Amino acid sequence: MKGEPLVSIVSAGLSKFGKLEGLYAREIFAEAAKEAFDRCPNLNPKKDIKALFVGHMGESYEHQGHTGATVADWAGLLHIPATRIETACASSGAALRVGIFAVLSGFCDVVMVGGVEKMTHRRTAEVTEYLAMASDFPFEQWHGITFPGLYALMATAHMHRYGTTEEQLAMVAVKNHQNGFLNPKAHMQKEVTLEKVVSSRVVAWPLKLYDCSLITDGASCLVITKPEIAKKYTDMPIQVIGSGQAGDSIGIYERESFTSLMAAKLAARQTYEMAGVKPEDVDVAEVHDCFTIAEIIAYEDLGFCKPGEGGQLVEEGETRLEGKIPVNTSGGLKAKGHPVGATGTAQAYEIYLQLTGQAEKRQVKDVKIGLAHNVGGSGATATVHIFRRE
Amino acid sequence: MKGEPLVSIVSAGLSKFGKLEGLYAREIFAEAAKEAFDRCPNLNPKKDIKALFVGHMGESYEHQGHTGATVADWAGLLHIPATRIETACASSGAALRVGIFAVLSGFCDVVMVGGVEKMTHRRTAEVTEYLAMASDFPFEQWHGITFPGLYALMATAHMHRYGTTEEQLAMVAVKNHQNGFLNPKAHMQKEVTLEKVVSSRVVAWPLKLYDCSLITDGASCLVITKPEIAKKYTDMPIQVIGSGQAGDSIGIYERESFTSLMAAKLAARQTYEMAGVKPEDVDVAEVHDCFTIAEIIAYEDLGFCKPGEGGQLVEEGETRLEGKIPVNTSGGLKAKGHPVGATGTAQAYEIYLQLTGQAEKRQVKDVKIGLAHNVGGSGATATVHIFRRE
Repeated sequence: MKGEPLVSIVSAGLSKFGKLEGLYAREIFAEAAKEAFDRCPNLNPKKDIKALFVGHMGESYEHQGHTGATVADWAGLLHIPATRIETACASSGAALRVGIFAVLSGFCDVVMVGGVEKMTHRRTAEVTEYLAMASDFPFEQWHGITFPGLYALMATAHMHRYGTTEEQLAMVAVKNHQNGFLNPKAHMQKEVTLEKVVSSRVVAWPLKLYDCSLITDGASCLVITKPEIAKKYTDMPIQVIGSGQAGDSIGIYERESFTSLMAAKLAARQTYEMAGVKPEDVDVAEVHDCFTIAEIIAYEDLGFCKPGEGGQLVEEGETRLEGKIPVNTSGGLKAKGHPVGATGTAQAYEIYLQLTGQAEKRQVKDVKIGLAHNVGGSGATATVHIFRRE
Repeated sequence: MKGEPLVSIVSAGLSKFGKLEGLYAREIFAEAAKEAFDRCPNLNPKKDIKALFVGHMGESYEHQGHTGATVADWAGLLHIPATRIETACASSGAALRVGIFAVLSGFCDVVMVGGVEKMTHRRTAEVTEYLAMASDFPFEQWHGITFPGLYALMATAHMHRYGTTEEQLAMVAVKNHQNGFLNPKAHMQKEVTLEKVVSSRVVAWPLKLYDCSLITDGASCLVITKPEIAKKYTDMPIQVIGSGQAGDSIGIYERESFTSLMAAKLAARQTYEMAGVKPEDVDVAEVHDCFTIAEIIAYEDLGFCKPGEGGQLVEEGETRLEGKIPVNTSGGLKAKGHPVGATGTAQAYEIYLQLTGQAEKRQVKDVKIGLAHNVGGSGATATVHIFRRE
């Protein structure tokens, strides 16, 4: 039934995001898990948590796959069924969705979902190569294109079709750095000026250094339960009332459009329908701003504005903390950072903070409905979730 | 309720297993999917299948992650939510389990689960390295141990504790090659003598070349549905009546025992309990014989014999086609081959053939209950599923 809660979030955790030297992914995940456990004294993790689904994108970074079992043990959850979920940068958005299935199936009353990535110990060229594995090998990687290049193609198409400007792209970065400045867990806690963004060095025109998200270490997690038992664990459960996922071709050459992501539009449609929510009902959103153009396209794919009007939306300040639809209050992938496997549930973590009134200096007032939009690669996977304060 | 069907398998597909030169994983998966579609004319794949979960272990082989979206497109399922599941060599056992959750959740009436790996285009040293990523990096890989070494430790412990012999290990290989000889899709369709196995070159004592499973390309899939609609698609649905999964430490140094796998024992206990089935009720089983010792340990962990009696069980011929509990009628990982991500659902495929009477020369008579046992790495993950003919 429309708007019925699928599951309730009863706790959440986030590690510090940044360059976490000397730590393994498993240790970073344990930090996030510890926050979730500390936040929820009524939870007996070892006894109550019946499964773990963890988003993790790349085994190459640490020469370590089999991530589920590895992080489960370090989080104090030895022997529980632990499964790695991978849909590129949407891995933990997909992990949340699988966790929802596990709860609804009746198999598990309480499930932990999360994500983790350890990236900064690798050279930038290595990270670029490992990330590129989420694009098409024969038709993209082989020819030398990497993610900044793929998103640059989308940006030039959007500029050509709709007149979107380099300054509008830069305004996404300025806004998200303003938010990240207020988030003590963000990787970059500094503001940037429009001039600094547009004059930063070109990575893949029109995308410059400050149009790109960060290579970051980090982990995130949520504890989700059947809604009817949520009050056992917390006075402030947050309901997940919509979950959507869709796919698209791995290579962008096969797509109908370069100015929107079909997977995101399909996932959003499913999610709004299930939640009984319209775009104008959303009070706060975290969207997948791996590059500034991606946030502008996300506004349009999610219906926050009409196609082609995303640049104008950010220019008018409507997605700032005090705007009509604040987007990426956490700082987003741009300033909070983008430990790829951790991003989806890190977005949900921020929405959890906002809806429970724990977002401190970046708290948006009177928020009831939140949304998280998580994209894999250049858009071959997208997940959308809608959350509601009880 | 005990023994209630969780889902029904309405179709299944398996690519040829072997050295499939010139093909990408996505093309091999499409071959398996095509068999599943051809086998089930009442299925309209594009319309009916609501999600795909695909086991895939290593992005390193093809420099290609984001496997869900990639294989979905090539299988003609563009735009459906497609998610990669990774628990090392148990990846598609875990994918089946996630697919069961998706159906039981009410989100999806029909789901495809499967797995794929393309390995043979890489040098053996590369494959050994990529496989090792499923063991512990700081405490195992770093010190140079690889999977033959880890399983050799278990083998020597088993020999020391129970008197298991090198000949008994070899008998597993002889039996599985006999079965593989009868399976036209097996990688190695040749019989081997006991003498040939025990005199083959030592890989990691006591494991010799013929004690090790094969580096293989291959893919497998199942189409699963809510039991109440299964007859819409086939006259011979096979029910999944039990699903278990458990974990253990990633490194074997932390384990209580080297002569059994705790994860497999826990998963088996859950599955038998859910299915209302006892070990002696199982008519046919596919178990994870990545090395011959692993099959002997599996007999014991699954309760087909008492701890320590696995060597004797194979020696007495009880696990041969004509024995009391035929094991690895497909040829197993040993002779059919072990395209790691594909193995879990390839085991389920064999059980599907056996329970529907389609196993041709290797058909076991009067089979009603089948079991599949899939292990990740050295046992940090295990899944067990029990299947029943309607």
